[in-house]
Amino acid sequence: MSESESRLFLVDELPGFTPQIGRLVSMMRYVRHTTLADAAGLGVEQLDYLHDPTSNSIGALLLHIAAVEVAYQAITFHRRDLTEEEENEWNGALDLGDKARRGIRGHDLNYYVKRLEGVRADTLAEFARRNDDWLAEQTPFWGGRRANNHFKWFHVLEDELNHRGQIRWLKTRALRDSA
Amino acid sequence: MSESESRLFLVDELPGFTPQIGRLVSMMRYVRHTTLADAAGLGVEQLDYLHDPTSNSIGALLLHIAAVEVAYQAITFHRRDLTEEEENEWNGALDLGDKARRGIRGHDLNYYVKRLEGVRADTLAEFARRNDDWLAEQTPFWGGRRANNHFKWFHVLEDELNHRGQIRWLKTRALRDSA
Repeated sequence: MSESESRLFLVDELPGFTPQIGRLVSMMRYVRHTTLADAAGLGVEQLDYLHDPTSNSIGALLLHIAAVEVAYQAITFHRRDLTEEEENEWNGALDLGDKARRGIRGHDLNYYVKRLEGVRADTLAEFARRNDDWLAEQTPFWGGRRANNHFKWFHVLEDELNHRGQIRWLKTRALRDSA
Repeated sequence: MSESESRLFLVDELPGFTPQIGRLVSMMRYVRHTTLADAAGLGVEQLDYLHDPTSNSIGALLLHIAAVEVAYQAITFHRRDLTEEEENEWNGALDLGDKARRGIRGHDLNYYVKRLEGVRADTLAEFARRNDDWLAEQTPFWGGRRANNHFKWFHVLEDELNHRGQIRWLKTRALRDSA
């Protein structure tokens, strides 16, 4: 078992990160582990499965998870929102809905895993350069209420979990309907 | 705006708790705020809505969220699992599935909110008596791998978020089908 696997059920400090960032990364790693475990083995048919006309596909949800992380890299590391060009690059994954339903199709699981991994590597590299004072920094956020970077990154993982719950539900139906 | 509302987007220390427990409680409060916001306004018909024969109702998911919290109170505060009698009290909410589909029906939203609030009050009272050393305590857990109390309580909130994602998805269909 790798060191990272043996630490999967620990929320704790991590080598290479300041104490609070380490605990946050522990949580993000566990969450990602479960997301990828749920997606493991799915084929293009299941990844593209649309349960009904307003449902998102599992593939679109996976790309959404990566796109949200990119958006919060911009917000917290560079203090800006995604540009329209960047949003277009993600093919509607940030907002989901019709554009994502039309545009995000035909990819195998490896495509989504690579996108997720590429984004995550950037996040961890930026975290490694920062410290707990940065994590506690506050700015006005939703509705003008103050939010710190710790909350903003917690939101990234809580949005992933929200969609992981949907992926689990959709996966059962996608596998059943394609059986 | 109350002090608690003004802190909704902060993951930070909290009065009455040690530093790491405070950050954990910050996250749990935000998660619960979103769960209740998603359930707000739902009637019995929507709470009992079954999308298909293997789907859980929103009511059962809400009771499941409370039951998981009770189970982790037993595991982390009292170092034991729920007894069969306690599991029965929760009417299948811990395991969901058929028993929950049959047994958890006909309650209004207030019933679920009160159950959730009662359980949460116990959790916060127990947290207030403990400290960060307790939160870091490890025991063998899933598959014998070591897990600390911090992870176990993170799991409680991550399971809630997983089901909140399903509640959001089901709610859209429940409201549409009952319109």
